[in-house]
Amino acid sequence: AEPALAARLRAAVDGKAKPPGSLGRLEDLAVRLGTIRNTEAPRADKAVLLLFAGDHGLCEEGVSAYPSAVTAAMVATLLAGRAAASVFARSVGAEIRVVDAGVTADLSDHAGLVHAKVRSGTRNAAREAALTPAEVGEALERGAAEAARAVGDGADVVLIGEMGIGNTAAAALLMHRLLPAPLERCIGLGAGHDEAGIARKRDALARAAARTGATETFEVLAEFGGLEILMMAGAALGAAAARRPVVVDGFIATVAALVAVRIRPEARDSLIFAHRSAEAGHALLLETLGASPLLDLGLRLGEGTGGLLALPLLRAAAAMLSDMATLEEVLAGAA
Amino acid sequence: AEPALAARLRAAVDGKAKPPGSLGRLEDLAVRLGTIRNTEAPRADKAVLLLFAGDHGLCEEGVSAYPSAVTAAMVATLLAGRAAASVFARSVGAEIRVVDAGVTADLSDHAGLVHAKVRSGTRNAAREAALTPAEVGEALERGAAEAARAVGDGADVVLIGEMGIGNTAAAALLMHRLLPAPLERCIGLGAGHDEAGIARKRDALARAAARTGATETFEVLAEFGGLEILMMAGAALGAAAARRPVVVDGFIATVAALVAVRIRPEARDSLIFAHRSAEAGHALLLETLGASPLLDLGLRLGEGTGGLLALPLLRAAAAMLSDMATLEEVLAGAA
Repeated sequence: AEPALAARLRAAVDGKAKPPGSLGRLEDLAVRLGTIRNTEAPRADKAVLLLFAGDHGLCEEGVSAYPSAVTAAMVATLLAGRAAASVFARSVGAEIRVVDAGVTADLSDHAGLVHAKVRSGTRNAAREAALTPAEVGEALERGAAEAARAVGDGADVVLIGEMGIGNTAAAALLMHRLLPAPLERCIGLGAGHDEAGIARKRDALARAAARTGATETFEVLAEFGGLEILMMAGAALGAAAARRPVVVDGFIATVAALVAVRIRPEARDSLIFAHRSAEAGHALLLETLGASPLLDLGLRLGEGTGGLLALPLLRAAAAMLSDMATLEEVLAGAA
Repeated sequence: AEPALAARLRAAVDGKAKPPGSLGRLEDLAVRLGTIRNTEAPRADKAVLLLFAGDHGLCEEGVSAYPSAVTAAMVATLLAGRAAASVFARSVGAEIRVVDAGVTADLSDHAGLVHAKVRSGTRNAAREAALTPAEVGEALERGAAEAARAVGDGADVVLIGEMGIGNTAAAALLMHRLLPAPLERCIGLGAGHDEAGIARKRDALARAAARTGATETFEVLAEFGGLEILMMAGAALGAAAARRPVVVDGFIATVAALVAVRIRPEARDSLIFAHRSAEAGHALLLETLGASPLLDLGLRLGEGTGGLLALPLLRAAAAMLSDMATLEEVLAGAA
């Protein structure tokens, strides 16, 4: 049934009141939304951004320009509706669910937060494995459960995003070992660094990489973490299993998407890449995944901000399929 | 006061709870919206797409793959809310005002249409001047009046778009003479052509260009038309004069923007280029205007569709300025 549906969707798009192909990538997006949802009339109305927060033991090595405490502070800002993602979500009409995947601080009294903490931050991957195999499994499962809950609540689209000081460092290690790619090509400026800072980050990541030769997916995940990245991967798998499009944000979310695809290759079909990040490793990562993001705006913030900005494109593509007249109807009117 | 405002806006953006520069082009967009509106808290809530429709005498020469009657049929489809622009406008929350700038058919009984017809289509520019100088002035004035009316009705943002069979041909002639650029570099496939069709279009445009040596802006406008292009230019001038951002759609709207800038260079400051069209001449046109559009999605439909898809980016940028916490606030909370 799948090839027949894709062909029917393409024919529907081609038959709309416009020169063939004149809506460019929106046309492909419409066909993809239909095949993912397995319907000729996909919707992208209710969108839920699952925003996972976690801390990283690697921060002890000075891999970030910001202290770990900023993760908890940004969670509070997100819950107060005043972070970049909060503002963009209101602007485009999406719901955000902030999930404590593994923030170091005790956030148990934060109302509105989804409490799914696996542990208080990862261990320092420069010195030991960031997570146990059991913690890896738990993080993936809790991520999938959050996606299932969002779908159960009516989400047409699931967006994945993250907040976690130090998480470009963990993401670089995962990319290095899973792609694989030379470590140097996976390391970028993250939230920003001076020369000494980036040297510190490079040195710490080289030590973490030298500590283990792991290449098998689950071993790599345990060695380097992090909890918010694994929960994003789990959420992508859960949403894909429920036939919902998964809107993937920037560099770190794309590493999570890579993890999901390594665990279940058919999940790739449900991934929609929102934007090309300014973070150094993203281009290579996207190329390997055969992904060409919808937006290219120089973003490098995370929080799912790129996904939120791409959401209106999904809605427009879906609306085109459902609501637009056919050329035949228009020409009949003209006759 | 202007430089001081721009500096204050940049400082406000830099002070937000994010790594400096991490929202990329959204940051520049926020600063531009503020300077255009002359405020530190710009909004982009109420958006009005002024969609001007007109016909072209050049169609007698076979410059389009579609007959002129399609213009009127598409106007009816727009008014019925079933064209691409209608569907996208509902999806992003924008109002469309369809303006009869110069459709050949008599549309006087169409409810919901703005009746501003200057004449029933332009004259055939391959044989004579498309418009009289008086008709040029009238079209520009009526376009400006529509923008003023939209602003009077509370528009924060004005989008310009068009519908007109044959209008890539007229736009190519305007670009050729006003930029100036070799005619060949200004001609594209428009709504689509086979080899014989594009040869017919090239031949007709070569004859139109050979008919007149005009290079002065108003003379060029009279020689080639068209009415919807001139009304878009007028609307851009009117909105710019009222300090509203003007969202410019694809190739034809950008030619109208060029006309506006040639008439009043300072209008350039109010133009926001929405998307890079797949139509051949657009890249050179954008380069000359120093414009780098927000989106690049392979669109080549017109109707203001690219502008509508870019609108959520303006709203997000404005919301960032107004609603996002400062880094100072977040760090104080973390301390």
